[in-house]
Amino acid sequence: MSQDIQAEVLAKVAEVFDKHVPFHNLLGLGIRRYDASGVEVEIKMKPELIGNIHQKILHGGVTATVLDVVGGLTAFSGLVISRDNWTVEQLQQRLQTLSTIDLRIDYLRPGWGEVFSGTGTVIRAGNRVSVCRMELHNEKGSHIAFGTGTYMVG
Amino acid sequence: MSQDIQAEVLAKVAEVFDKHVPFHNLLGLGIRRYDASGVEVEIKMKPELIGNIHQKILHGGVTATVLDVVGGLTAFSGLVISRDNWTVEQLQQRLQTLSTIDLRIDYLRPGWGEVFSGTGTVIRAGNRVSVCRMELHNEKGSHIAFGTGTYMVG
Amino acid sequence: MSQDIQAEVLAKVAEVFDKHVPFHNLLGLGIRRYDASGVEVEIKMKPELIGNIHQKILHGGVTATVLDVVGGLTAFSGLVISRDNWTVEQLQQRLQTLSTIDLRIDYLRPGWGEVFSGTGTVIRAGNRVSVCRMELHNEKGSHIAFGTGTYMVG
Amino acid sequence: MSQDIQAEVLAKVAEVFDKHVPFHNLLGLGIRRYDASGVEVEIKMKPELIGNIHQKILHGGVTATVLDVVGGLTAFSGLVISRDNWTVEQLQQRLQTLSTIDLRIDYLRPGWGEVFSGTGTVIRAGNRVSVCRMELHNEKGSHIAFGTGTYMVG
Repeated sequence: MSQDIQAEVLAKVAEVFDKHVPFHNLLGLGIRRYDASGVEVEIKMKPELIGNIHQKILHGGVTATVLDVVGGLTAFSGLVISRDNWTVEQLQQRLQTLSTIDLRIDYLRPGWGEVFSGTGTVIRAGNRVSVCRMELHNEKGSHIAFGTGTYMVG
Repeated sequence: MSQDIQAEVLAKVAEVFDKHVPFHNLLGLGIRRYDASGVEVEIKMKPELIGNIHQKILHGGVTATVLDVVGGLTAFSGLVISRDNWTVEQLQQRLQTLSTIDLRIDYLRPGWGEVFSGTGTVIRAGNRVSVCRMELHNEKGSHIAFGTGTYMVG
Repeated sequence: MSQDIQAEVLAKVAEVFDKHVPFHNLLGLGIRRYDASGVEVEIKMKPELIGNIHQKILHGGVTATVLDVVGGLTAFSGLVISRDNWTVEQLQQRLQTLSTIDLRIDYLRPGWGEVFSGTGTVIRAGNRVSVCRMELHNEKGSHIAFGTGTYMVG
Repeated sequence: MSQDIQAEVLAKVAEVFDKHVPFHNLLGLGIRRYDASGVEVEIKMKPELIGNIHQKILHGGVTATVLDVVGGLTAFSGLVISRDNWTVEQLQQRLQTLSTIDLRIDYLRPGWGEVFSGTGTVIRAGNRVSVCRMELHNEKGSHIAFGTGTYMVG
């Protein structure tokens, strides 16, 4: 029952983030996977996302955006699976107060590629504050960037 | 003579960042001021930049983008004014290798507003690596976010 | 009445941090000032604090320690002055759960000097989480390091 | 031949960091392992390292110190193994300019334990700047803290 609620909430959040956040639509950012086992956020290279025309590199702000979205979703799923007796209402309320406190991005390599994929892990799970690590890879598996984010989850 | 070169290079860079970076055009990000005394980057709120539909808050990725652009421009202007005998060619070469090593963003308040303005200061000026502090305010002077960035400048 | 409680609590905390924290005693770290207007933490150079023998530079871990202590005290004083009706018991409880979530240090200049002084400011004041900026200067006013810390305050 | 030089240089550096850095002696910080495969820095709990008397927690400044030392040694070993034809003199010169640009620490759990061990990995290897990730565990394998550091290596 409760795991149904968890899965249902995550699926709804994924749909909102995938289709109804204006800035995600502008960038073409999509939620490829979002369940209790984790999240995968994808973005396809397109000319509008370029930061350096000569070298055709993904703008660092796009990298930051993807990692921040991944971190928020990771922190939220960590909260969702943290206990069995959440109600839908409680989780909706938590989602509304979910926010990034701080974010660190380490740019490792130039953002070359066709499709970029962001994944994350909770490294400190709290009832109020969670800390996540995020990574961005291109379609060849090159490690483009690391992220560390502190999120308010309640 | 040299100050002319400095001013000329900064003006050119401002034009490129203002008009010829695809991602800046997509967002509507503009360079309002860029000279030896500093930089001001501006972005006007528009529906596509929203991250939270219910609260109409600027997406955290937009904040990160503005602060990263401010930081890069601040680091570069710090380099430009660091000595008098730069040639245009030397500065162009430095600009090409300019890159963000790491970036920390502290989100202070929800991104509400009509026009957001980013400014920065060099806090560690090096021949190879510079560290800058950046700030984002809205048109009422509310402090939306702080940034700290480490930039490769040579 | 309440401002008396606030001042009393801050004075007690200052005494504990100054005299009863073993690691502060080991380093010779002292609380020079701690009231509603802010905090000043001081550390005198001594041979044991050196990290680089040839250049006689303060160890980066000492810088980190001072900035972290400053940040925690700054966050706590921000909480104390945030409302008038704290009881001593409530503040004691908050102090016990006070902890650093994350800390960023920007090392600006080599740590040369006789006496180092750390000061701080709250940049995001929350009921649960606060973000502070900290600075370390030597006795000549040279800016040695910047810090940014996120603290759990409740 | 060159691998001999590399091993010799790392062994010498390990000896200096283990025995001749005053602040390391004060804390009881030791280099347990330092070779081409990585570094392990160890610190034993002792009353002087406590930051919270009631809970007997390792001071956050000790955690920061260990992670910074680990990060610097990791960055340096990454440089040493980056090419085969270093001379001892070149590496000594690089060691003298080795410095921390910035450091982020994520405190995950209270620092309880008898022996703490710090390890690290290079995540961005450059000829001038390297970025490392560091971790601190206690003797039971509990993950106490994460670190991310940017180091000047040349």
